[in-house]
Amino acid sequence: MPHITRKGVKVYYESFGSGPAIVFLHPWSTNRFIWTFQIMHFARTHRCIAVDHRGHGQSDKPEGGYAIPEMAADVAAILDDAGVDRAILVGNSIGGMVAMQTSLDFPERVIGNLILSSATNMAASAPPEMAEAMQTDWRGMFSGLLDAAVSVKSKATRPEIGAYMEGCFRVESNFTEGVFFTSAADPAGVFNWNISDRLKDITQPTLILAGAEDGATTVEHNQFLADNIPGAEIRIFEDVGHFLQLEQPMTFNDELTGFVARVLS
Amino acid sequence: MPHITRKGVKVYYESFGSGPAIVFLHPWSTNRFIWTFQIMHFARTHRCIAVDHRGHGQSDKPEGGYAIPEMAADVAAILDDAGVDRAILVGNSIGGMVAMQTSLDFPERVIGNLILSSATNMAASAPPEMAEAMQTDWRGMFSGLLDAAVSVKSKATRPEIGAYMEGCFRVESNFTEGVFFTSAADPAGVFNWNISDRLKDITQPTLILAGAEDGATTVEHNQFLADNIPGAEIRIFEDVGHFLQLEQPMTFNDELTGFVARVLS
Repeated sequence: MPHITRKGVKVYYESFGSGPAIVFLHPWSTNRFIWTFQIMHFARTHRCIAVDHRGHGQSDKPEGGYAIPEMAADVAAILDDAGVDRAILVGNSIGGMVAMQTSLDFPERVIGNLILSSATNMAASAPPEMAEAMQTDWRGMFSGLLDAAVSVKSKATRPEIGAYMEGCFRVESNFTEGVFFTSAADPAGVFNWNISDRLKDITQPTLILAGAEDGATTVEHNQFLADNIPGAEIRIFEDVGHFLQLEQPMTFNDELTGFVARVLS
Repeated sequence: MPHITRKGVKVYYESFGSGPAIVFLHPWSTNRFIWTFQIMHFARTHRCIAVDHRGHGQSDKPEGGYAIPEMAADVAAILDDAGVDRAILVGNSIGGMVAMQTSLDFPERVIGNLILSSATNMAASAPPEMAEAMQTDWRGMFSGLLDAAVSVKSKATRPEIGAYMEGCFRVESNFTEGVFFTSAADPAGVFNWNISDRLKDITQPTLILAGAEDGATTVEHNQFLADNIPGAEIRIFEDVGHFLQLEQPMTFNDELTGFVARVLS
């Protein structure tokens, strides 16, 4: 499994298939396994690159450096390492943030963005009790947040999504307490990162997919992105939370197939 | 992602968590992603090691060397590399074959086997038209075999399983035509491997899980294993084919949880 090293931090990625490149960027606390039903399917016709963000999965988990722009620079370095000039970015949650930042910082490398359930400036809308809950029992708080991020229907029919998610943030070799708190506190990290004023500068074709029952990045969060990124489209799915690629994998795959066809035509 | 090298062949594995070790061995043509809903869940309490067999995924794909005993020797080398004395083996299909062979060849390394939908001496029961179909259109033949290996219910409710499977054997960077034909022709490869007379020598606790609708390794194939491995238990699941870990992930996880508790007690 190849990796890049930036400022001493190793960031791993996995690559399957050949053709136009699609880079898959996972949510906070998870890893590239969240794209199981996408990677092999799209690798039939595309080069699929799935990243473990710094602080996650096989990648290094340094004490600091969890600003979204650092993670976007990792993506650019991975494109260099993989010999890819331009790619379609597919990002879920923090992965969507990284995709948007990569589009701003390295615009010539990005063909288009499929943003699945993401946001900017999350701190502004965080409930006031969250900060305290984080300090007293971060895993309990995070477990509740993830529970609210999966739809009622998905919880009933696909309980394995919760099992995967709960494992991801409770397994220290995948995601540590240190990564959680350092990312959360970073002035440009998952909660504080705010590009509200720069969304207008994203020039790549952008499709935003959101779940009607997403309690983590709400329809309003996603609608704000769609309203401010020039030409962005948004689609909202009933009975879906934060993880369309696992909750309704073929629906997600159909959307990505259509998006890829449009931006490559 | 760590790897071992045997006779010049690199075999990759991935490790998450700590505690008693569980090694996950995937079916022919697939890769370690098939265990997405197991690895992170069980890594909360165990060290989960997921292997890409030689010829698959990130591992090397040499021109030969696809005898099941070679793959079992890879597992033993991975245990050495990972610093694991003894492990529970979880094997699906060819992964189950590798688990049984490891139990015979390295009995001191195996705590117990959970065999999911496997067989021995498959060539004896292969339909005569299969050999010809392999020569004229192996991917078409294999696609049909996989279609018959997923239950009617799973195909309707989880079509992403088929999308994942179809990708696995059509993406040359995951599994090549050469691996297919060399494995199939090997006198101790997936089809010809026959330990019928040695099943009685497997002394480790063994649980066999089979799907009632599995057209690849049938209930009869699995029952033969259960009848011949001393003390083996078998459970047969309705509405399930060859891939319980994807078709009903939590049912599989519950079975593995129970098995792990029994063999470690």
